[in-house]
Amino acid sequence: MPVYRCSLPEGRLSADQKQQIASEITEIHCALTNGTPRKFVHVVFDEARPGATFAGGEPSTASKIVGLIRAGRTQETRSELVRRLTDMWASVTGQDKAEILVAVHEVRPQDVMEWGELLPEDGQEASWVAEHDLGRFGVDATR
Amino acid sequence: MPVYRCSLPEGRLSADQKQQIASEITEIHCALTNGTPRKFVHVVFDEARPGATFAGGEPSTASKIVGLIRAGRTQETRSELVRRLTDMWASVTGQDKAEILVAVHEVRPQDVMEWGELLPEDGQEASWVAEHDLGRFGVDATR
Amino acid sequence: MPVYRCSLPEGRLSADQKQQIASEITEIHCALTNGTPRKFVHVVFDEARPGATFAGGEPSTASKIVGLIRAGRTQETRSELVRRLTDMWASVTGQDKAEILVAVHEVRPQDVMEWGELLPEDGQEASWVAEHDLGRFGVDATR
Repeated sequence: MPVYRCSLPEGRLSADQKQQIASEITEIHCALTNGTPRKFVHVVFDEARPGATFAGGEPSTASKIVGLIRAGRTQETRSELVRRLTDMWASVTGQDKAEILVAVHEVRPQDVMEWGELLPEDGQEASWVAEHDLGRFGVDATR
Repeated sequence: MPVYRCSLPEGRLSADQKQQIASEITEIHCALTNGTPRKFVHVVFDEARPGATFAGGEPSTASKIVGLIRAGRTQETRSELVRRLTDMWASVTGQDKAEILVAVHEVRPQDVMEWGELLPEDGQEASWVAEHDLGRFGVDATR
Repeated sequence: MPVYRCSLPEGRLSADQKQQIASEITEIHCALTNGTPRKFVHVVFDEARPGATFAGGEPSTASKIVGLIRAGRTQETRSELVRRLTDMWASVTGQDKAEILVAVHEVRPQDVMEWGELLPEDGQEASWVAEHDLGRFGVDATR
Protein backbone atom coordinates (compact mmCIF):
# COMPACT_ATOMS: atom_id res chain seq x y z
CA MET A 1 0.00 0.00 0.00
CA PRO A 2 -0.61 2.53 -1.43
CA VAL A 3 -2.12 1.20 -4.65
CA TYR A 4 -2.71 3.89 -7.27
CA ARG A 5 -4.99 2.86 -10.10
CA CYS A 6 -4.81 5.12 -13.15
CA SER A 7 -7.80 4.73 -15.47
CA LEU A 8 -7.36 6.27 -18.89
CA PRO A 9 -8.26 5.64 -22.51
CA GLU A 10 -6.23 2.98 -24.28
CA GLY A 11 -3.17 4.10 -26.18
CA ARG A 12 -2.95 7.50 -24.58
CA LEU A 13 0.36 6.95 -22.79
CA SER A 14 3.60 5.54 -24.09
CA ALA A 15 5.56 2.92 -22.17
CA ASP A 16 8.04 5.65 -21.22
CA GLN A 17 5.30 7.88 -19.89
CA LYS A 18 3.91 5.05 -17.78
CA GLN A 19 7.35 4.39 -16.37
CA GLN A 20 7.83 8.08 -15.62
CA ILE A 21 4.42 8.43 -13.99
CA ALA A 22 5.01 5.33 -11.85
CA SER A 23 8.32 6.79 -10.67
CA GLU A 24 6.83 10.18 -9.94
CA ILE A 25 3.83 8.81 -8.06
CA THR A 26 6.30 6.85 -5.93
CA GLU A 27 8.41 9.94 -5.28
CA ILE A 28 5.43 12.12 -4.43
CA HIS A 29 3.80 9.58 -2.15
CA CYS A 30 7.03 8.83 -0.25
CA ALA A 31 7.96 12.50 0.07
CA LEU A 32 4.62 13.33 1.70
CA THR A 33 4.18 10.23 3.85
CA ASN A 34 7.29 9.88 5.92
CA GLY A 35 8.40 6.35 6.18
CA THR A 36 6.56 4.62 3.35
CA PRO A 37 9.15 2.30 1.81
CA ARG A 38 9.35 2.87 -1.95
CA LYS A 39 8.71 -0.79 -2.67
CA PHE A 40 5.24 -0.49 -1.15
CA VAL A 41 4.00 2.02 -3.70
CA HIS A 42 2.00 0.17 -6.36
CA VAL A 43 0.82 1.76 -9.59
CA VAL A 44 -1.55 0.09 -12.05
CA PHE A 45 -2.53 1.50 -15.43
CA ASP A 46 -5.99 0.47 -16.42
CA GLU A 47 -6.64 1.29 -20.05
CA ALA A 48 -10.25 1.51 -21.18
CA ARG A 49 -11.30 0.49 -24.66
CA PRO A 50 -12.95 3.02 -26.96
CA GLY A 51 -16.52 3.70 -25.96
CA ALA A 52 -16.03 2.68 -22.35
CA THR A 53 -15.64 6.05 -20.56
CA PHE A 54 -18.13 8.87 -20.13
CA ALA A 55 -18.43 12.16 -18.24
CA GLY A 56 -21.66 14.11 -17.96
CA GLY A 57 -23.29 11.44 -20.08
CA GLU A 58 -20.96 12.11 -23.03
CA PRO A 59 -17.93 10.15 -24.24
CA SER A 60 -14.91 11.30 -22.26
CA THR A 61 -11.15 10.99 -22.38
CA ALA A 62 -10.66 12.08 -18.75
CA SER A 63 -8.09 10.32 -16.59
CA LYS A 64 -9.07 9.07 -13.14
CA ILE A 65 -6.29 8.35 -10.65
CA VAL A 66 -7.54 6.75 -7.42
CA GLY A 67 -5.14 5.81 -4.67
CA LEU A 68 -5.92 3.34 -1.93
CA ILE A 69 -3.84 4.61 0.98
CA ARG A 70 -3.31 3.70 4.60
CA ALA A 71 -5.58 5.67 6.93
CA GLY A 72 -3.92 7.98 9.42
CA ARG A 73 -2.50 10.86 7.42
CA THR A 74 -3.71 14.41 8.05
CA GLN A 75 -6.19 16.18 5.80
CA GLU A 76 -3.39 18.56 4.88
CA THR A 77 -1.21 15.68 3.70
CA ARG A 78 -3.99 14.05 1.73
CA SER A 79 -4.97 17.28 0.02
CA GLU A 80 -1.35 18.03 -0.84
CA LEU A 81 -1.02 14.52 -2.22
CA VAL A 82 -3.88 14.93 -4.70
CA ARG A 83 -2.62 18.40 -5.62
CA ARG A 84 0.90 17.24 -6.46
CA LEU A 85 -0.36 14.16 -8.29
CA THR A 86 -2.64 16.34 -10.41
CA ASP A 87 0.21 18.70 -11.27
CA MET A 88 2.49 15.79 -12.13
CA TRP A 89 -0.12 14.09 -14.32
CA ALA A 90 -0.83 17.30 -16.21
CA SER A 91 2.87 17.90 -16.71
CA VAL A 92 3.80 14.41 -17.93
CA THR A 93 0.76 13.81 -20.11
CA GLY A 94 -0.05 17.33 -21.24
CA GLN A 95 -3.65 16.64 -20.32
CA ASP A 96 -5.78 19.59 -19.23
CA LYS A 97 -6.70 19.66 -15.52
CA ALA A 98 -10.35 19.73 -16.54
CA GLU A 99 -9.74 16.13 -17.62
CA ILE A 100 -7.91 14.90 -14.52
CA LEU A 101 -9.49 13.51 -11.37
CA VAL A 102 -7.27 12.43 -8.50
CA ALA A 103 -8.62 10.93 -5.28
CA VAL A 104 -7.22 9.11 -2.28
CA HIS A 105 -9.29 6.62 -0.37
CA GLU A 106 -8.33 5.41 3.09
CA VAL A 107 -8.01 1.82 4.29
CA ARG A 108 -7.18 0.86 7.89
CA PRO A 109 -3.61 -0.42 8.26
CA GLN A 110 -4.74 -3.57 10.04
CA ASP A 111 -7.10 -4.35 7.16
CA VAL A 112 -4.12 -4.80 4.84
CA MET A 113 -1.49 -7.53 4.59
CA GLU A 114 1.68 -7.05 2.59
CA TRP A 115 4.93 -9.03 2.59
CA GLY A 116 3.01 -11.44 4.80
CA GLU A 117 2.47 -8.86 7.57
CA LEU A 118 -0.38 -6.61 8.70
CA LEU A 119 0.58 -3.00 8.02
CA PRO A 120 1.73 -0.69 10.84
CA GLU A 121 0.07 2.51 11.98
CA ASP A 122 1.34 5.79 10.59
CA GLY A 123 4.71 6.60 12.17
CA GLN A 124 5.51 2.97 13.07
CA GLU A 125 7.01 2.05 9.69
CA ALA A 126 10.69 1.94 10.65
CA SER A 127 10.17 -0.23 13.74
CA TRP A 128 7.80 -2.43 11.73
CA VAL A 129 10.38 -2.98 9.00
CA ALA A 130 12.97 -3.81 11.67
CA GLU A 131 10.66 -6.11 13.63
CA HIS A 132 9.82 -8.20 10.57
CA ASP A 133 13.35 -7.98 9.22
CA LEU A 134 12.09 -6.70 5.87
CA GLY A 135 15.43 -5.04 5.28
CA ARG A 136 16.63 -8.41 4.00
CA PHE A 137 14.31 -7.86 1.01
CA GLY A 138 15.67 -4.38 0.40
CA VAL A 139 12.72 -2.67 2.10
CA ASP A 140 13.81 0.65 3.53
CA ALA A 141 11.48 2.88 5.56
CA THR A 142 14.01 5.64 6.12
CA ARG A 143 13.69 7.23 2.70
CA MET B 1 -16.56 12.81 -8.74
CA PRO B 2 -18.62 10.66 -8.65
CA VAL B 3 -16.89 7.87 -10.57
CA TYR B 4 -19.14 4.89 -11.31
CA ARG B 5 -17.33 1.76 -12.40
CA CYS B 6 -19.55 -0.84 -14.05
CA SER B 7 -17.97 -4.31 -14.13
CA LEU B 8 -19.68 -6.75 -16.44
CA PRO B 9 -18.86 -9.59 -18.79
CA GLU B 10 -17.44 -8.60 -22.15
CA GLY B 11 -19.86 -8.11 -25.01
CA ARG B 12 -22.96 -7.94 -22.87
CA LEU B 13 -23.84 -4.32 -23.65
CA SER B 14 -24.04 -2.57 -26.99
CA ALA B 15 -22.49 0.85 -27.54
CA ASP B 16 -25.98 2.35 -27.42
CA GLN B 17 -26.74 0.69 -24.12
CA LYS B 18 -23.51 2.02 -22.63
CA GLN B 19 -24.36 5.50 -23.82
CA GLN B 20 -27.85 5.21 -22.37
CA ILE B 21 -26.61 3.88 -19.04
CA ALA B 22 -24.01 6.64 -18.78
CA SER B 23 -26.72 9.25 -19.39
CA GLU B 24 -29.07 7.68 -16.89
CA ILE B 25 -26.45 7.33 -14.17
CA THR B 26 -25.71 11.01 -14.67
CA GLU B 27 -29.38 11.96 -14.44
CA ILE B 28 -30.00 9.83 -11.36
CA HIS B 29 -26.91 11.02 -9.52
CA CYS B 30 -27.57 14.71 -10.24
CA ALA B 31 -31.27 14.44 -9.39
CA LEU B 32 -30.48 13.02 -5.94
CA THR B 33 -27.42 15.09 -5.08
CA ASN B 34 -28.38 18.70 -5.46
CA GLY B 35 -25.69 20.69 -7.06
CA THR B 36 -23.45 18.06 -8.63
CA PRO B 37 -22.55 19.50 -12.04
CA ARG B 38 -23.31 16.96 -14.78
CA LYS B 39 -19.76 17.15 -16.12
CA PHE B 40 -18.46 15.71 -12.84
CA VAL B 41 -20.27 12.41 -13.21
CA HIS B 42 -17.84 9.83 -14.60
CA VAL B 43 -18.86 6.38 -15.79
CA VAL B 44 -16.42 3.64 -16.76
CA PHE B 45 -17.39 0.28 -18.24
CA ASP B 46 -14.99 -2.41 -17.26
CA GLU B 47 -15.57 -5.54 -19.32
CA ALA B 48 -14.24 -8.81 -17.97
CA ARG B 49 -13.00 -11.53 -20.25
CA PRO B 50 -14.63 -14.96 -20.19
CA GLY B 51 -13.64 -16.92 -17.13
CA ALA B 52 -12.80 -13.86 -15.05
CA THR B 53 -15.92 -13.43 -12.88
CA PHE B 54 -17.35 -15.68 -10.20
CA ALA B 55 -20.08 -15.63 -7.56
CA GLY B 56 -20.40 -18.22 -4.82
CA GLY B 57 -17.37 -19.93 -6.30
CA GLU B 58 -19.13 -20.53 -9.65
CA PRO B 59 -18.74 -18.68 -12.96
CA SER B 60 -21.03 -15.66 -12.90
CA THR B 61 -22.40 -13.08 -15.29
CA ALA B 62 -23.44 -10.67 -12.54
CA SER B 63 -22.90 -6.93 -13.00
CA LYS B 64 -21.23 -4.92 -10.27
CA ILE B 65 -21.69 -1.14 -10.27
CA VAL B 66 -19.60 0.65 -7.66
CA GLY B 67 -19.69 4.41 -7.33
CA LEU B 68 -17.03 6.45 -5.63
CA ILE B 69 -18.98 9.43 -4.28
CA ARG B 70 -18.23 12.47 -2.20
CA ALA B 71 -18.91 11.89 1.50
CA GLY B 72 -21.64 13.99 3.11
CA ARG B 73 -24.92 12.74 1.71
CA THR B 74 -27.55 11.26 4.03
CA GLN B 75 -28.15 7.54 4.39
CA GLU B 76 -31.54 8.11 2.81
CA THR B 77 -29.96 9.68 -0.28
CA ARG B 78 -27.35 6.96 -0.62
CA SER B 79 -29.90 4.16 -0.28
CA GLU B 80 -32.19 5.82 -2.80
CA LEU B 81 -29.23 6.19 -5.15
CA VAL B 82 -28.44 2.47 -5.18
CA ARG B 83 -32.14 1.66 -5.48
CA ARG B 84 -32.68 3.84 -8.56
CA LEU B 85 -29.45 2.70 -10.17
CA THR B 86 -30.47 -0.93 -9.69
CA ASP B 87 -33.88 -0.31 -11.26
CA MET B 88 -32.30 1.57 -14.17
CA TRP B 89 -29.72 -1.15 -14.81
CA ALA B 90 -32.36 -3.87 -14.76
CA SER B 91 -34.54 -1.87 -17.12
CA VAL B 92 -31.85 -0.99 -19.69
CA THR B 93 -30.07 -4.35 -19.72
CA GLY B 94 -32.93 -6.72 -18.95
CA GLN B 95 -30.68 -8.33 -16.36
CA ASP B 96 -32.35 -9.95 -13.35
CA LYS B 97 -31.86 -8.11 -10.05
CA ALA B 98 -30.36 -11.30 -8.63
CA GLU B 99 -27.44 -10.51 -10.94
CA ILE B 100 -27.02 -6.82 -10.11
CA LEU B 101 -24.95 -5.38 -7.28
CA VAL B 102 -24.85 -1.61 -6.80
CA ALA B 103 -22.79 0.08 -4.09
CA VAL B 104 -21.65 3.59 -3.28
CA HIS B 105 -18.43 4.22 -1.44
CA GLU B 106 -17.63 7.55 0.18
CA VAL B 107 -14.50 9.67 -0.26
CA ARG B 108 -13.88 12.91 1.61
CA PRO B 109 -14.28 15.98 -0.63
CA GLN B 110 -10.89 17.36 0.37
CA ASP B 111 -9.27 14.07 -0.65
CA VAL B 112 -10.25 14.68 -4.27
CA MET B 113 -8.97 17.13 -6.88
CA GLU B 114 -10.87 17.81 -10.07
CA TRP B 115 -10.53 20.61 -12.59
CA GLY B 116 -7.43 21.52 -10.60
CA GLU B 117 -9.40 22.20 -7.39
CA LEU B 118 -10.11 20.34 -4.17
CA LEU B 119 -13.80 19.45 -4.08
CA PRO B 120 -16.29 21.40 -1.93
CA GLU B 121 -18.37 20.05 0.93
CA ASP B 122 -21.94 19.00 0.18
CA GLY B 123 -24.08 22.10 -0.37
CA GLN B 124 -21.13 24.34 -1.32
CA GLU B 125 -21.08 23.38 -5.00
CA ALA B 126 -22.56 26.56 -6.49
CA SER B 127 -20.26 28.92 -4.59
CA TRP B 128 -17.32 26.64 -5.38
CA VAL B 129 -18.08 26.74 -9.11
CA ALA B 130 -18.35 30.52 -8.91
CA GLU B 131 -15.21 30.96 -6.82
CA HIS B 132 -13.08 28.98 -9.26
CA ASP B 133 -14.88 30.43 -12.28
CA LEU B 134 -15.59 26.93 -13.60
CA GLY B 135 -18.59 28.30 -15.49
CA ARG B 136 -16.10 29.27 -18.21
CA PHE B 137 -15.70 25.53 -18.89
CA GLY B 138 -19.44 24.99 -19.04
CA VAL B 139 -19.63 23.62 -15.49
CA ASP B 140 -23.04 24.30 -14.00
CA ALA B 141 -23.92 23.40 -10.41
CA THR B 142 -27.50 24.66 -10.59
CA ARG B 143 -28.91 21.65 -12.39
CA MET C 1 -21.11 -8.20 -1.40
CA PRO C 2 -18.29 -8.87 -0.80
CA VAL C 3 -16.62 -8.15 -4.14
CA TYR C 4 -12.99 -9.27 -4.32
CA ARG C 5 -11.02 -7.82 -7.20
CA CYS C 6 -7.78 -9.63 -7.95
CA SER C 7 -5.35 -7.57 -10.05
CA LEU C 8 -2.50 -9.53 -11.54
CA PRO C 9 -0.39 -9.68 -14.67
CA GLU C 10 -2.04 -11.26 -17.69
CA GLY C 11 -1.51 -14.97 -18.23
CA ARG C 12 -0.23 -15.69 -14.74
CA LEU C 13 -3.13 -17.92 -13.67
CA SER C 14 -4.75 -20.83 -15.48
CA ALA C 15 -8.52 -21.17 -15.71
CA ASP C 16 -8.32 -23.92 -13.09
CA GLN C 17 -6.37 -21.70 -10.71
CA LYS C 18 -8.94 -18.91 -11.09
CA GLN C 19 -11.72 -21.36 -10.35
CA GLN C 20 -9.87 -22.67 -7.31
CA ILE C 21 -9.09 -19.20 -5.99
CA ALA C 22 -12.72 -18.10 -6.45
CA SER C 23 -13.88 -21.14 -4.47
CA GLU C 24 -11.33 -20.59 -1.73
CA ILE C 25 -12.07 -16.88 -1.37
CA THR C 26 -15.72 -17.83 -1.00
CA GLU C 27 -14.94 -20.45 1.65
CA ILE C 28 -12.64 -18.16 3.61
CA HIS C 29 -15.00 -15.20 3.56
CA CYS C 30 -18.04 -17.26 4.57
CA ALA C 31 -16.15 -19.11 7.30
CA LEU C 32 -15.08 -15.84 8.94
CA THR C 33 -18.25 -13.81 8.45
CA ASN C 34 -21.07 -15.84 9.89
CA GLY C 35 -24.11 -15.67 7.76
CA THR C 36 -22.80 -14.41 4.43
CA PRO C 37 -24.61 -16.52 1.82
CA ARG C 38 -22.11 -18.08 -0.58
CA LYS C 39 -23.89 -16.63 -3.59
CA PHE C 40 -23.06 -13.12 -2.40
CA VAL C 41 -19.31 -13.59 -2.66
CA HIS C 42 -18.12 -12.09 -5.94
CA VAL C 43 -14.62 -12.53 -7.33
CA VAL C 44 -13.27 -10.68 -10.37
CA PHE C 45 -9.89 -11.31 -11.98
CA ASP C 46 -8.49 -8.20 -13.53
CA GLU C 47 -5.50 -9.04 -15.70
CA ALA C 48 -3.12 -6.23 -16.53
CA ARG C 49 -1.30 -6.10 -19.82
CA PRO C 50 2.51 -6.12 -19.91
CA GLY C 51 3.94 -2.79 -18.85
CA ALA C 52 0.92 -1.77 -16.82
CA THR C 53 1.98 -2.56 -13.24
CA PHE C 54 4.72 -1.05 -11.12
CA ALA C 55 5.99 -1.16 -7.54
CA GLY C 56 8.56 1.24 -6.14
CA GLY C 57 8.72 2.84 -9.58
CA GLU C 58 9.89 -0.42 -11.21
CA PRO C 59 7.94 -2.93 -13.31
CA SER C 60 6.23 -5.36 -10.96
CA THR C 61 4.42 -8.67 -11.12
CA ALA C 62 2.82 -8.29 -7.68
CA SER C 63 -0.78 -9.36 -7.16
CA LYS C 64 -3.23 -7.02 -5.46
CA ILE C 65 -6.41 -8.47 -3.99
CA VAL C 66 -8.84 -5.85 -2.70
CA GLY C 67 -12.15 -6.84 -1.20
CA LEU C 68 -15.11 -4.51 -0.84
CA ILE C 69 -16.87 -5.84 2.26
CA ARG C 70 -19.85 -4.86 4.36
CA ALA C 71 -18.88 -2.68 7.31
CA GLY C 72 -19.50 -4.09 10.77
CA ARG C 73 -17.00 -6.86 11.26
CA THR C 74 -14.42 -6.66 14.05
CA GLN C 75 -10.81 -5.69 13.48
CA GLU C 76 -9.87 -9.23 14.49
CA THR C 77 -12.10 -10.69 11.77
CA ARG C 78 -10.83 -8.32 9.11
CA SER C 79 -7.18 -8.98 9.96
CA GLU C 80 -7.76 -12.72 9.97
CA LEU C 81 -9.48 -12.40 6.59
CA VAL C 82 -6.49 -10.75 4.92
CA ARG C 83 -4.15 -13.21 6.61
CA ARG C 84 -5.98 -16.30 5.35
CA LEU C 85 -6.44 -14.83 1.88
CA THR C 86 -2.71 -14.11 1.67
CA ASP C 87 -1.85 -17.66 2.72
CA MET C 88 -4.33 -19.09 0.22
CA TRP C 89 -3.05 -16.93 -2.64
CA ALA C 90 0.56 -17.89 -1.92
CA SER C 91 -0.37 -21.55 -1.74
CA VAL C 92 -2.44 -21.71 -4.95
CA THR C 93 -0.22 -19.50 -7.10
CA GLY C 94 3.20 -20.21 -5.60
CA GLN C 95 3.76 -16.45 -5.53
CA ASP C 96 6.06 -15.10 -2.82
CA LYS C 97 4.33 -13.12 -0.06
CA ALA C 98 6.58 -10.17 -0.90
CA GLU C 99 4.51 -9.99 -4.10
CA ILE C 100 1.04 -10.25 -2.55
CA LEU C 101 -1.06 -7.40 -1.20
CA VAL C 102 -4.46 -8.14 0.29
CA ALA C 103 -6.79 -5.45 1.63
CA VAL C 104 -10.41 -5.20 2.69
CA HIS C 105 -12.32 -1.97 2.37
CA GLU C 106 -15.59 -1.36 4.17
CA VAL C 107 -18.89 -0.18 2.68
CA ARG C 108 -22.00 0.51 4.75
CA PRO C 109 -24.67 -2.19 4.31
CA GLN C 110 -27.36 0.35 3.48
CA ASP C 111 -25.16 1.78 0.73
CA VAL C 112 -25.40 -1.49 -1.18
CA MET C 113 -28.26 -3.11 -3.09
CA GLU C 114 -28.17 -6.74 -4.13
CA TRP C 115 -30.93 -9.06 -5.30
CA GLY C 116 -33.02 -5.89 -5.36
CA GLU C 117 -32.66 -5.30 -1.60
CA LEU C 118 -30.54 -3.06 0.62
CA LEU C 119 -28.12 -5.23 2.58
CA PRO C 120 -28.70 -6.06 6.26
CA GLU C 121 -26.47 -5.17 9.17
CA ASP C 122 -23.98 -7.77 10.38
CA GLY C 123 -25.83 -10.51 12.23
CA GLN C 124 -29.18 -9.85 10.50
CA GLU C 125 -28.48 -12.00 7.43
CA ALA C 126 -30.73 -14.95 8.22
CA SER C 127 -33.79 -12.85 9.04
CA TRP C 128 -33.08 -10.70 5.99
CA VAL C 129 -32.97 -13.72 3.69
CA ALA C 130 -36.24 -14.94 5.22
CA GLU C 131 -37.93 -11.53 5.06
CA HIS C 132 -37.19 -11.13 1.36
CA ASP C 133 -37.79 -14.81 0.65
CA LEU C 134 -34.41 -15.13 -1.04
CA GLY C 135 -34.39 -18.83 -0.24
CA ARG C 136 -36.45 -19.28 -3.42
CA PHE C 137 -33.31 -18.31 -5.35
CA GLY C 138 -31.18 -20.78 -3.45
CA VAL C 139 -29.73 -18.11 -1.14
CA ASP C 140 -28.78 -19.64 2.18
CA ALA C 141 -27.43 -17.57 5.09
CA THR C 142 -26.97 -20.50 7.43
CA ARG C 143 -23.72 -21.73 5.94
